[in-house]
Amino acid sequence: MAYAAGGGKRLRGFLVLESARLSGVAEARALWPAAAIEAVHAYSLVHDDLPCMDDDDMRRGQPTVHLKWDEATAVLAGDALQSAAFEMVLREECHPDAAVRADLALTLARAAGAHGMVRGQALDIAAEAAETPLGLAEVEALQAGKTGALFGWAAEAGARLARGDVTPFTAYAAALGLAFQIADDLLDVEGDAAAAGKRLRKDAEAGKATFVSLLGVDGARARANELAERACDAVAPFGDDAATLQALARFIISRET
Amino acid sequence: MAYAAGGGKRLRGFLVLESARLSGVAEARALWPAAAIEAVHAYSLVHDDLPCMDDDDMRRGQPTVHLKWDEATAVLAGDALQSAAFEMVLREECHPDAAVRADLALTLARAAGAHGMVRGQALDIAAEAAETPLGLAEVEALQAGKTGALFGWAAEAGARLARGDVTPFTAYAAALGLAFQIADDLLDVEGDAAAAGKRLRKDAEAGKATFVSLLGVDGARARANELAERACDAVAPFGDDAATLQALARFIISRET
Repeated sequence: MAYAAGGGKRLRGFLVLESARLSGVAEARALWPAAAIEAVHAYSLVHDDLPCMDDDDMRRGQPTVHLKWDEATAVLAGDALQSAAFEMVLREECHPDAAVRADLALTLARAAGAHGMVRGQALDIAAEAAETPLGLAEVEALQAGKTGALFGWAAEAGARLARGDVTPFTAYAAALGLAFQIADDLLDVEGDAAAAGKRLRKDAEAGKATFVSLLGVDGARARANELAERACDAVAPFGDDAATLQALARFIISRET
Repeated sequence: MAYAAGGGKRLRGFLVLESARLSGVAEARALWPAAAIEAVHAYSLVHDDLPCMDDDDMRRGQPTVHLKWDEATAVLAGDALQSAAFEMVLREECHPDAAVRADLALTLARAAGAHGMVRGQALDIAAEAAETPLGLAEVEALQAGKTGALFGWAAEAGARLARGDVTPFTAYAAALGLAFQIADDLLDVEGDAAAAGKRLRKDAEAGKATFVSLLGVDGARARANELAERACDAVAPFGDDAATLQALARFIISRET
């Protein structure tokens, strides 16, 4: 499939392109929100990798920004990427209707900010400092912010460009995001660091609650399968056109990096 | 005057309110971009104060965010404030016309990002590492990004809300921003840290080029006066209505904190 062939590294942008295709939007237009969500994701990775956050050395098989350059550059690069993301969806090239651009930018601000991705990050940090590991509902809430908010925005963006119905994409992304995170937790336990291009087994070493620690390997895998099926069902109304998004949901839970 | 009476600490937001008043826009509406620009400014201060940037302990007379909480919280708080700023200008309450909201947000993204404020910050950091101090033109270019971009957006925002002519506000802000920075450099040399609520004499200790090191105290003061007069001239077409902005320009170069 196209996504796997691309190396599987630009998932959020790919979701924008697919939801745009299903919504009848030209790819040239969808590239703007696709680039924007990748910029937000990249900013979050650059900041997350900082010594005061996850303190990571490798990302996508390369030295992290603060190691390659320095910490100040990493802070500023992340800050500039966030601004750039908003610029991308607000350019006239993205959509001739200012109401669509404003809608994309407003929903992006909400998905990225203190009630979305940043909230998930803050909950994650708080969880590390907590005396007792989180329960399943709390881990799900954390992941809904940390991963789910951007997945949701990405999957809805195509429908927003078309001023269409976001509902099937919202449901698809909610299930996909959770399945993705469970698969990530499984990879953290079972994966290969060289293939993943980043350090693994950090969560287990830190004693953090994950879907694997809460459900066990088999239970986590079963839950991921169930969520992938739920994601497939959500876009079933699009018929054969949804085949790529459905293959993506199944790919995500079986990926090895 | 109203600005000085308010403690002089919310300059960018005040510029929005004044430019809105001169453009015939209701204050209730102008409060959104005013809050937005203060959020961007606050995010930049929180990140600038980080140990990897300016490593400051005090801000506005309080411990900086990374000291009061921790560095990760400071990174995330800044990130969330940037998202919040975009959300504020994109809310329908800010303006009923989506084209105006999109215009405010796009120009804010450009002012804040890699060609605006972040560029100024990056140039500032590069200047610290440079072997020879910057010349006057380079210091002016640095300040145009670091201070000028947000001043410009703030002063233009009222006109943007009114879909009016931004030209006089652009000229006013360019002169005001530079005058402000020269006054800051003078305060850094001559000021009182307790009154300023932050550490002073950092630039001189670091051997950095400033307007004072380049022009001398008297030369810098003369230039600040000249720029303040230029700012006053820029808004002279508004007649008596411009009195507050003109008083602000003169206040800025005579302030003691």
